[in-house]
Amino acid sequence: METMKALVWKEKGKVELCDRPMPKIVDPRDAIVRVTRASICSSDLHIIHGTVPRAKEGVVLGHEFVGEVVEAGSAVRRFKPGDRVAVNVESFCGECFFCKRGYVNNCVEGGWELGCRINGGQAEYVRVPTADQSFTRIPEGVSDEDALFVGDVLATGYWAAQIGEIAPASTALVLGAGPTGLCTMMSARLYSPAKIIAVDVSDERLALAKAKGLCDVTLNPKRDDVLCAVRALTEGRGADRVFEVAGAKNTFELAWQAARPNAVVVVVALYAEAQSIPLQLMYGKNLTFKTGGVDANSCGDIMKLVETKQLDTSLMITHRAPLNDILTGYDIFGNQKDGCIKWVVTPYERN
Amino acid sequence: METMKALVWKEKGKVELCDRPMPKIVDPRDAIVRVTRASICSSDLHIIHGTVPRAKEGVVLGHEFVGEVVEAGSAVRRFKPGDRVAVNVESFCGECFFCKRGYVNNCVEGGWELGCRINGGQAEYVRVPTADQSFTRIPEGVSDEDALFVGDVLATGYWAAQIGEIAPASTALVLGAGPTGLCTMMSARLYSPAKIIAVDVSDERLALAKAKGLCDVTLNPKRDDVLCAVRALTEGRGADRVFEVAGAKNTFELAWQAARPNAVVVVVALYAEAQSIPLQLMYGKNLTFKTGGVDANSCGDIMKLVETKQLDTSLMITHRAPLNDILTGYDIFGNQKDGCIKWVVTPYERN
Amino acid sequence: METMKALVWKEKGKVELCDRPMPKIVDPRDAIVRVTRASICSSDLHIIHGTVPRAKEGVVLGHEFVGEVVEAGSAVRRFKPGDRVAVNVESFCGECFFCKRGYVNNCVEGGWELGCRINGGQAEYVRVPTADQSFTRIPEGVSDEDALFVGDVLATGYWAAQIGEIAPASTALVLGAGPTGLCTMMSARLYSPAKIIAVDVSDERLALAKAKGLCDVTLNPKRDDVLCAVRALTEGRGADRVFEVAGAKNTFELAWQAARPNAVVVVVALYAEAQSIPLQLMYGKNLTFKTGGVDANSCGDIMKLVETKQLDTSLMITHRAPLNDILTGYDIFGNQKDGCIKWVVTPYERN
Amino acid sequence: METMKALVWKEKGKVELCDRPMPKIVDPRDAIVRVTRASICSSDLHIIHGTVPRAKEGVVLGHEFVGEVVEAGSAVRRFKPGDRVAVNVESFCGECFFCKRGYVNNCVEGGWELGCRINGGQAEYVRVPTADQSFTRIPEGVSDEDALFVGDVLATGYWAAQIGEIAPASTALVLGAGPTGLCTMMSARLYSPAKIIAVDVSDERLALAKAKGLCDVTLNPKRDDVLCAVRALTEGRGADRVFEVAGAKNTFELAWQAARPNAVVVVVALYAEAQSIPLQLMYGKNLTFKTGGVDANSCGDIMKLVETKQLDTSLMITHRAPLNDILTGYDIFGNQKDGCIKWVVTPYERN
Repeated sequence: METMKALVWKEKGKVELCDRPMPKIVDPRDAIVRVTRASICSSDLHIIHGTVPRAKEGVVLGHEFVGEVVEAGSAVRRFKPGDRVAVNVESFCGECFFCKRGYVNNCVEGGWELGCRINGGQAEYVRVPTADQSFTRIPEGVSDEDALFVGDVLATGYWAAQIGEIAPASTALVLGAGPTGLCTMMSARLYSPAKIIAVDVSDERLALAKAKGLCDVTLNPKRDDVLCAVRALTEGRGADRVFEVAGAKNTFELAWQAARPNAVVVVVALYAEAQSIPLQLMYGKNLTFKTGGVDANSCGDIMKLVETKQLDTSLMITHRAPLNDILTGYDIFGNQKDGCIKWVVTPYERN
Repeated sequence: METMKALVWKEKGKVELCDRPMPKIVDPRDAIVRVTRASICSSDLHIIHGTVPRAKEGVVLGHEFVGEVVEAGSAVRRFKPGDRVAVNVESFCGECFFCKRGYVNNCVEGGWELGCRINGGQAEYVRVPTADQSFTRIPEGVSDEDALFVGDVLATGYWAAQIGEIAPASTALVLGAGPTGLCTMMSARLYSPAKIIAVDVSDERLALAKAKGLCDVTLNPKRDDVLCAVRALTEGRGADRVFEVAGAKNTFELAWQAARPNAVVVVVALYAEAQSIPLQLMYGKNLTFKTGGVDANSCGDIMKLVETKQLDTSLMITHRAPLNDILTGYDIFGNQKDGCIKWVVTPYERN
Repeated sequence: METMKALVWKEKGKVELCDRPMPKIVDPRDAIVRVTRASICSSDLHIIHGTVPRAKEGVVLGHEFVGEVVEAGSAVRRFKPGDRVAVNVESFCGECFFCKRGYVNNCVEGGWELGCRINGGQAEYVRVPTADQSFTRIPEGVSDEDALFVGDVLATGYWAAQIGEIAPASTALVLGAGPTGLCTMMSARLYSPAKIIAVDVSDERLALAKAKGLCDVTLNPKRDDVLCAVRALTEGRGADRVFEVAGAKNTFELAWQAARPNAVVVVVALYAEAQSIPLQLMYGKNLTFKTGGVDANSCGDIMKLVETKQLDTSLMITHRAPLNDILTGYDIFGNQKDGCIKWVVTPYERN
Repeated sequence: METMKALVWKEKGKVELCDRPMPKIVDPRDAIVRVTRASICSSDLHIIHGTVPRAKEGVVLGHEFVGEVVEAGSAVRRFKPGDRVAVNVESFCGECFFCKRGYVNNCVEGGWELGCRINGGQAEYVRVPTADQSFTRIPEGVSDEDALFVGDVLATGYWAAQIGEIAPASTALVLGAGPTGLCTMMSARLYSPAKIIAVDVSDERLALAKAKGLCDVTLNPKRDDVLCAVRALTEGRGADRVFEVAGAKNTFELAWQAARPNAVVVVVALYAEAQSIPLQLMYGKNLTFKTGGVDANSCGDIMKLVETKQLDTSLMITHRAPLNDILTGYDIFGNQKDGCIKWVVTPYERN
């Protein structure tokens, strides 16, 4: 039996680089992808730590990857072997109540499957279900690496900005300057707020965001009174739009406090526990909270904006190494060592 | 000095029907109204119980009333003595950042003032600020009583339905069948959901809502498994829109649990304390929460719909008595005795 | 070879009831439907008169019909023999650029095909392409006849009202009280305008619309100064929303003249020739024109509203007869004899 | 009597630089502005040629100007002498049916008055009505010249882009690369289309637009088959959004032909005569046309974007001279001599 290398989640706290059987098509809508680039995501860490209930032990990790189609099922209509594709974090049918409305995260036969409930992309090969929906073609002129984040973290930032209803000339506050925060900022820019304010406890990340033009003002709660500073920047009102991407202690509270009355607060962060929402204190403030995980329904548009360089994630790739080194990658990325934003795995190099 | 009767909030737990000086115009945008009908609102009870921080002791209560203009300040352009008007619960300038966007509840020089921070309408006369903004003309053919709720509780239900983004053929769940719940239901009807489900612990109120056609299905948590029933009514998905008007123990939790993924949950209820929002459990459910107190910016439209009988609040008037009996009214209304939905005060009868 | 009866368009000006071969599945996404009810539509007349360029000679007419599935192709996932279904006037793939956005009328492999370019439903049996997209299940409790118009004329009125962005308390003006006009009115009602004004040259049709509660005011240009009357009904401004369904001489002009500044004018009518749009005269009036033929993407919602009786087209069925009498039907319907609104054909009666 | 210089429209075809009495406050909401910069606009030419029916002979021309408040009426609440302000082309009350909805162009007591029906800004001083609504404060750090176009041509381009509902990654086609076209392009950029295609007969203007980054592709109908080129750039579909700013022969036709099905076509151009709209040919294309003249309701936001340099009109100022030279300006600007985009008049220089 033919085998391949893959990173397997064995049980809480334990991952292992193993030999696994090559994936095969099991449904006519499936396709097999040879992975050229994959990344490590903080959700992978959550799975390993055992805090993602839907994850299944024994699964190959990895839900953010690109590659080349090597085999397509008989019902796949839009893709064929040789096509370069970015893979959507969510598998979805495109036809159910939720898919029809763009809520692909809640597809009745899909949602987040790859690298969670079925084998993912931190491997040499991977089977991808509902390939016609799951793939986004990578245009000529866009490298695999430039397309790597289209299907997950960039889709998340793009979605956050989109549901945030940002108007030109407004002020957007982004809590968190890690990968999702950076993607949120660059996506928010597409709507031309007059000011993007970034908040993080890492000066290094803030400096990167500022240097790359993703934000206009940076605040570090270790040093700055964030609430006070935001009000000073907004004629005393608070931010028009708040994006809570940090998920740290007190950041939910900071989010609603820093918002102006009638603001939209987008809550993308994944928390470890319940938050307190003191509605009696915010009565009359009339905030809108939009919560949850990405509905990754715009990957085609995102890819176009990557092609035109209106979205550019190259600043996030701080590390790059073969699949064999992936456990080092988990250490460096997971502990934010060495200025790591994203660790990229290179299972295969196209010529 | 000329005096009038008025109900005054003396201090926590204490109200008194007193003689007070007749109100006078103090700003050229003011007008004086002779009150023909006023009502008691649950917010009045909150003030008396001391749980409304912005309320001032010594104030005349009452923020839901209609009457006749008897004097208009020199800068009032749209109204003159003799005009019959409904008064908006919120005073607002119409010109500031918030007013321009329709967020009149957060007007920089207004918001909820009448019967809270300045003397209100449970009295014979009342001074109303920014009269051009605050008044809605009562058309011929609409009685004072039919117009009584336009400026507060009906505006609240209307606003809730409006921000709820109800689509034709959807399912709306309304938690609470008191005055605000009933107004929410009749306003939700304007958007033609296929089904309105009403939830309350009072069978009497549910029966009234059903009998008057404000809802299609009623559920009483004392008897019904609400979650289970809502799912059965929605092909297992949950309600498309949820309106939490009850503010009772567990109703916030019920609201987000009974909502389908990607639903809008409108939270109009005024809670006594902070709620827990277990974002980690609802991650991926992608709910939108719209919170707070009415932006009463549509009173003109509401009045038109009252005129055409598309909104009809007459079912809510269960009791009616002179100003002298108002303390009895507080007892009956406050304790939901005698099937009371709304107690209406009649300070003056027009001929 | 097995045959069936079908009405065939032979050439300009000529139709014939013929024996035709029974339809067969040619694509795995096809299904065969036994027709229980079909109707005659004014578009059928346009085809016969030779003014529909996309129509093909020799085609079986009929694009508004319901029936029972008798055979389903291997790729049909949602329907099976025995299912009762309404058929969508438009065939569409559900996956292309246009379908993803709801613009099913411009599907790259579909659009209006049935009874125009491929054999339609004025027949005993019909082959329907992309059945999963084309069918709307008829719920128990809804008769075939109640569902008959869901896929075409009711979808058109529903779509017109939907893109018309009608707000509660506004005024909607509908030019034309034939089948499409009546469906537009009943759909407009779902958005609760304060007033619907119907215009037609037939007093009989106006009286029907009024008697059934589809409109509030009726105007007949033979007798009334429509412009003047509309202004009198709208405080001098003009109608907030105008639906031009008539397509008669001067009705396009009436539509923009009767609209208030910044109104939405929905133009659903099919004209015989180009119209003049005097933009220099309407400069500053800032009208929005929405033009064209139905994007029938909401049939599921429409069926739900038929089920709850919020949409009820029974008033439109003035005539009913077997397929053998269909040529009489064309005469009666086409010449508006005998008060005919809709002529319904009954090829088969279910038990 | 004190006098000042002003350019007066005497009669069709004739303007004259005259001495006129200094303006005085006539309504308490008025203010007097000392003009520092004014421009010549193509609408001025239309007035002179007698094609603007609402214009009054004898009026001082000029509706695009900035300056310093020298006197404020007693009811002006937000501005005082010494304030630097941009003046809105439209005077509006802020309170009527239309103003409340943002349709300030149709204000019942305003609209385009200055330089058309009342004396305008091609003068040393000017009286401005409803000053609280009409003025936009010029922030420190923004020069008078940078703010000059905020109240008219930039507001027009901004409004066009705004009502155009441009989505990220879409394609926008702009017909006309004169001042309004350039402002439309820079405003369209705020919504991040993937591609802006500019069309004009002047290679010089196209080159300027391209060099300044306002568009991505340029087409000159003298040389290019525009329809064909647009389709080639849009996978055969046509442009997602079309802005018709040219108002030339055949440009209305080009606009709807180059649009993809279900596109929005914004028609800002002022035509000399009626256009033909062949609805029978575009049936099923389902276009939305948004027509008319600017609703200049976003000047505050525009000024903010000027402050952050997200909007920068400096490329348009090709000529600059004192008021005394204004007749030369009309010749140069009106005949597009010497590469003229905008001729700026400098009645007064602040120190």
